[in-house]
Amino acid sequence: MGDWDALYATRTKNMRASEIRELLKLLDQPDIISFAGGIPDPALFPKEAIKEAYDAVLSKNADIALQYSVSEGYRPLREWLVQHMASLGVSCTIDNIVITTGSQQALDYLGKLFISPGDTVLTTWPTYLGALQAFNAYEPRYDRLNPEQGNMTPAAYRDSAKAAGGDVRLAYLTADFCNPTGETVSREGRSRLVELAHELNIPLIEDAAYRALRFDGDPVPTMLALDCEREGHIDRTRVVYSGSFSKTLTPGLRVGWVCAAQPVIAKLVLIKQAADLHSPTINQMAIHHVAERSFDKQVEKVRDSYRKRRDYMLDALARFMPAGVTWTKPEGGMFVWVTLPDGMDGAALLAKALQKARVAFVPGFAFYADGTGKNTIRLNFSLPNKEAIETGISRLGKLIAEEAI
Amino acid sequence: MGDWDALYATRTKNMRASEIRELLKLLDQPDIISFAGGIPDPALFPKEAIKEAYDAVLSKNADIALQYSVSEGYRPLREWLVQHMASLGVSCTIDNIVITTGSQQALDYLGKLFISPGDTVLTTWPTYLGALQAFNAYEPRYDRLNPEQGNMTPAAYRDSAKAAGGDVRLAYLTADFCNPTGETVSREGRSRLVELAHELNIPLIEDAAYRALRFDGDPVPTMLALDCEREGHIDRTRVVYSGSFSKTLTPGLRVGWVCAAQPVIAKLVLIKQAADLHSPTINQMAIHHVAERSFDKQVEKVRDSYRKRRDYMLDALARFMPAGVTWTKPEGGMFVWVTLPDGMDGAALLAKALQKARVAFVPGFAFYADGTGKNTIRLNFSLPNKEAIETGISRLGKLIAEEAI
Repeated sequence: MGDWDALYATRTKNMRASEIRELLKLLDQPDIISFAGGIPDPALFPKEAIKEAYDAVLSKNADIALQYSVSEGYRPLREWLVQHMASLGVSCTIDNIVITTGSQQALDYLGKLFISPGDTVLTTWPTYLGALQAFNAYEPRYDRLNPEQGNMTPAAYRDSAKAAGGDVRLAYLTADFCNPTGETVSREGRSRLVELAHELNIPLIEDAAYRALRFDGDPVPTMLALDCEREGHIDRTRVVYSGSFSKTLTPGLRVGWVCAAQPVIAKLVLIKQAADLHSPTINQMAIHHVAERSFDKQVEKVRDSYRKRRDYMLDALARFMPAGVTWTKPEGGMFVWVTLPDGMDGAALLAKALQKARVAFVPGFAFYADGTGKNTIRLNFSLPNKEAIETGISRLGKLIAEEAI
Repeated sequence: MGDWDALYATRTKNMRASEIRELLKLLDQPDIISFAGGIPDPALFPKEAIKEAYDAVLSKNADIALQYSVSEGYRPLREWLVQHMASLGVSCTIDNIVITTGSQQALDYLGKLFISPGDTVLTTWPTYLGALQAFNAYEPRYDRLNPEQGNMTPAAYRDSAKAAGGDVRLAYLTADFCNPTGETVSREGRSRLVELAHELNIPLIEDAAYRALRFDGDPVPTMLALDCEREGHIDRTRVVYSGSFSKTLTPGLRVGWVCAAQPVIAKLVLIKQAADLHSPTINQMAIHHVAERSFDKQVEKVRDSYRKRRDYMLDALARFMPAGVTWTKPEGGMFVWVTLPDGMDGAALLAKALQKARVAFVPGFAFYADGTGKNTIRLNFSLPNKEAIETGISRLGKLIAEEAI
């Protein structure tokens, strides 16, 4: 009897559970204060509106809700998204939109569409861990984007990719309130990235999962809007916008979308048809029902809540962190990114934090394509309440001070 | 501005919309009688039970239903499936089960797990079109299983795969009421396949989408049950069982599952985590709620309805088909497979059938990995009613008789 390990395709050899996942398993103990997760506060879910939505959908349109459907997604939801994208400065039609089972699925399908083994993916250091996991199935290498301090030249990216045996095939980043850093790319930084994508002739994936969660400051145009402006029409753009209802309405229904040039959408529809036929119709209809009636109100509610918690966390960090520790000041999203004193290791600190301080977070190296960033950690503020934030950051600050001696 | 076509990974070059999909677009005209689809009759959906399920889930467990969840799937549903698999002669635990977004997703993930470009997939001629589409993203070649008339020897399959530059990596078939033929593999045929999988040391994917829809005759043990019997424990088996609620409860919620040896499930969970995090929690909870209360009753209702339609169709074929036409006599499922007179082309017949007879079906070549089977067509009986079946088959018989002259 052969061993299963010998049977798997090469692309799966390095798959392993994410550090976050492993970490969350440790968090069953109720006395641990967790800043580790990246999940919304369930108290903010529009439960009544969602319940009413399922009731309405199943009372009036059960035959559609329960039957097979088209891979593009539920047409009225795509129509609603056309309006939503217009509010972001993007003029498009339903042929520029495909519904996905959460935005994670969009990353998988985009990897499938663009990455061959040995090709190069450009991304920020650090970047969303789930994007690395999704792309890794297609066996790329990574090179670094640095939209503010200075990207490499197109020629340098190309040479580096060719030396590694492939081509530069896509660029990926979260421009608004990045997971994990909470930081936002400036308008100039975005324009440079759009320019780079055109120069390299590659898609630029704009992960907009946190886009709606701006607490203060002025919105920066989406890269897709900048590219539409540059090109005069969405079908000539290179930006692939990946949106999600997970952070605004609810993640449990798994509804996201991609908005991009029509040829890309047409290919994603073919990929989706072969990969899962379509996202659950009933959930698309329920999301449409809720979005149409109360999207803006819901976003406002979530923003107000997370803004307060961001403030509690920044206050607590200022009060309790010892000298030598720095952190980002996010204008939105769900995370603060902390840089530890020189030489301190986030993973080692986590082990001690769980044991001694009963506090959890995610070590920053997990978000680096090359495993660097060891002296960083990610703190989530969307789930813990004021008291947990103050107590947890106080304990963490004390531990870091002890360790830094 | 480069053309998008130049940017796609090789694996996507041959993706195209399925013939069925293209065909269904033609069927908007209400006077066409369609035997083309492969979809359940929406009149049979347990609408009230599903509505009650969403109401109960959102009243009692909204925080769980709407939040992120684990990639393995909703635990109570996996526990229900452990009992369900026991009723099929398979003794397993929840670690042998992962929930997928419909069984189509299982095929995509299994392709991702096992197929490298140039490898060989064994399947029947014809086979489920959606399996070919899912696997094609991983660039295999195909070789032919023939469980009743005689498979090739393991050495012959291996030599043939090696000559093509890869290895034999998996075998796939629907053993019960196959889409497209409606045929069922005998117990002896199944045992031979299980034996072959062990000899070749490859997974044998048992697509059980139609398993519950047996109208008459004795059930044949699942290949997974036979392998459990052979090996004494599911974790030593080579059969990967892919199940679905789409044909029994409803396809619109997109809930399927895989039951297999624990190492395979663990890998599928990792793939799923990277590819879409998890299937929508709320739908898994709703399916669990309905399955727990009325799975058997619902299956009986669907069986009774489809049994009658199968009978109408077999009667109509006997009455209206000219000499030289033969067809299968399915004991379950949703399809009858028709072999046309020698030299008659199913695709050419379809063009005429749409135009002259106002009848639709799927040409059989679409289900052949090598595009042969040109003189076959697939007829669906789950959706048309008695009158449509009699009128449609009568028109089709007349057309075939004319064409055969």
